[in-house]
Amino acid sequence: MTDSPNTPLRIAFSADHAGFELKTLLIAWLREQGHDILDLGTDSDASVDYPDFGYRLANSLERGDAPFGITICGSGIGIAIAANRNPHVRCAQVAEPVSAALARRHNNANAIALGARLIGVDMAKACVTAFLETPFEGGRHTHRVDKLAHPQEAA
Amino acid sequence: MTDSPNTPLRIAFSADHAGFELKTLLIAWLREQGHDILDLGTDSDASVDYPDFGYRLANSLERGDAPFGITICGSGIGIAIAANRNPHVRCAQVAEPVSAALARRHNNANAIALGARLIGVDMAKACVTAFLETPFEGGRHTHRVDKLAHPQEAA
Repeated sequence: MTDSPNTPLRIAFSADHAGFELKTLLIAWLREQGHDILDLGTDSDASVDYPDFGYRLANSLERGDAPFGITICGSGIGIAIAANRNPHVRCAQVAEPVSAALARRHNNANAIALGARLIGVDMAKACVTAFLETPFEGGRHTHRVDKLAHPQEAA
Repeated sequence: MTDSPNTPLRIAFSADHAGFELKTLLIAWLREQGHDILDLGTDSDASVDYPDFGYRLANSLERGDAPFGITICGSGIGIAIAANRNPHVRCAQVAEPVSAALARRHNNANAIALGARLIGVDMAKACVTAFLETPFEGGRHTHRVDKLAHPQEAA
């Protein structure tokens, strides 16, 4: 993104039960900053299956509901795998802001996955800020990113 | 895995140029432990595209060449996205062994992605050891893992 951090962004969110509380906190925090949030659930801490919510985020990004997505499960691992089944999604599983920034800069990530049982709220916020404020570098990274949309053409 | 850590395992490896050196070190270290390594390249530090090597690992796991795979790029992000395009692959991007163990325990991960420019050799070895020595828990995790094989049935 080349937008200023204060430009309102549309951001889709999903989480399983383990991520529900962190999702709630991050959505409130981003709404306070003026961002437009699409909350795709889950809506409580009742047990659900993380793949359903990874797919839900992916489908929403593919439809163009939002340019960016954030998805949360206990570790961030399973929900990132699910989201990345969709070739439209480039979801980086991140636990610190260096990776969140690199995911934008080099991979043009349109989603991040967070692990609510592995990182704290302030670290999660630092990841989100780095994700939303870092632009894609383009250049030599562009054709590599393009290849991520065409797995069926793999060598 | 319920095997002892000393049971020889067949492990497929791939990396882009940024991961070439770490791949070389890890392969030598695992061969010293008696493991059977399938090296899918790249074979030098000449620039290549990480998606090609993520897909190469995924195709190899899908063919059944090896039960486990390790793939490496600069951050681990892009090559994990590529590998996870294949519904046969459950690739966890890991930077510390807690996540590597959780990926096995909860997600039955058959691959990990490492970021050669983000973690050091000893941390990478700790991730690999946790990945290879931790069993899948099964139970409530099984039907969630099964859903990762069927993204087209997503809600």
